[in-house]
Amino acid sequence: MKQKATNITWHEGNIKKTDRERLNGQRGVCLWFTGLSGSGKSVIANQVQNLLFEKGHRTYVLDGDNIRFGLNKDLGFSPQDRTENIRRIGEVAKLFVDAGMVTGTAFISPYREDRDTVRQLMPEGDFLEVYVKCDLEVCEQRDPKGLYKKARAGEIPNFTGISAPYEAPENPELVVDTSVQDDITKNAQIVIDFLEEKGYLEAPEAAE
Amino acid sequence: MKQKATNITWHEGNIKKTDRERLNGQRGVCLWFTGLSGSGKSVIANQVQNLLFEKGHRTYVLDGDNIRFGLNKDLGFSPQDRTENIRRIGEVAKLFVDAGMVTGTAFISPYREDRDTVRQLMPEGDFLEVYVKCDLEVCEQRDPKGLYKKARAGEIPNFTGISAPYEAPENPELVVDTSVQDDITKNAQIVIDFLEEKGYLEAPEAAE
Repeated sequence: MKQKATNITWHEGNIKKTDRERLNGQRGVCLWFTGLSGSGKSVIANQVQNLLFEKGHRTYVLDGDNIRFGLNKDLGFSPQDRTENIRRIGEVAKLFVDAGMVTGTAFISPYREDRDTVRQLMPEGDFLEVYVKCDLEVCEQRDPKGLYKKARAGEIPNFTGISAPYEAPENPELVVDTSVQDDITKNAQIVIDFLEEKGYLEAPEAAE
Repeated sequence: MKQKATNITWHEGNIKKTDRERLNGQRGVCLWFTGLSGSGKSVIANQVQNLLFEKGHRTYVLDGDNIRFGLNKDLGFSPQDRTENIRRIGEVAKLFVDAGMVTGTAFISPYREDRDTVRQLMPEGDFLEVYVKCDLEVCEQRDPKGLYKKARAGEIPNFTGISAPYEAPENPELVVDTSVQDDITKNAQIVIDFLEEKGYLEAPEAAE
């Protein structure tokens, strides 16, 4: 801690994303799962993680369980709060990606503009939008948390698909249609196959 | 994605902190560096990371560079904003710790109450407060970013140590006094020795 110049040198010598990627044998990447409540985002994201973990990959999933009661506990479901919710999640995902992790996020994230804002945060190729497609009727029939029932009864305002809009992705990197195929592992495998095919599960080439 | 019960089973089967810790051969832990501007928090945190990385450990550092221009770019330096700044950083650090990473945070974090709030977020032993102690005079002499000069000239309001308070930790897990010892690597080694001695750099025992 002698001089300003020393200081700068140290910062230049710090660990970078590609260093971590080489240590982890994979690319840091964000799998941004988006879709209606009950579409299966969280279970697929977690199963992707389970399968990758078994192969020794470093992964993390951000979802309602660890975000809504923590970082974003001050936010509700108004349009402004939803936008801020997604902004913060995007910023945190960016940090995990920078840390060299395969990072899943599982949030409805209903607004196209908000998802595009997150995409812009990251270098090209670091953000992969995974549209977990599912008919509203199927989601409502599953209703794993009884939320659709409450929303229909007017007990939950601004509920996506019922009383608030969902804007489907126009050019997602990947679509997983869970109305057609509801096997969790097969759906997770679609995501993993994509990652493998695109080289995300290998360390990057050494830099110049 | 068949039944609510299936859903619950999957969530129970998800990867946990101890699984990641075993994969990484270390404990997930937060090293919360606190101290005046110019005390050396960020360089020490980064040097700890550099040295651990060389040994194959998984680490990440949250600091002004990746937080103030990202997640917390909407926050200023009023007492309320400082508190929210630290709250969010604490929540993000908690996620990185849960991901099994040795997680450094390098922020002035001047209020004792705010740091204690972060401590409470995490299970006992996951939060280690590292007081980077340094006389104000020494920090002001170093002034690596020219901030003290500006603060003295009245150009920066609410500047910690000059026009805003710094509440030193009362019971930090570790003190690194950079007025006495200004060698970055030696100071980083103090932190690493502590981690080693306390078993943070080994995988936890297998659960029951």
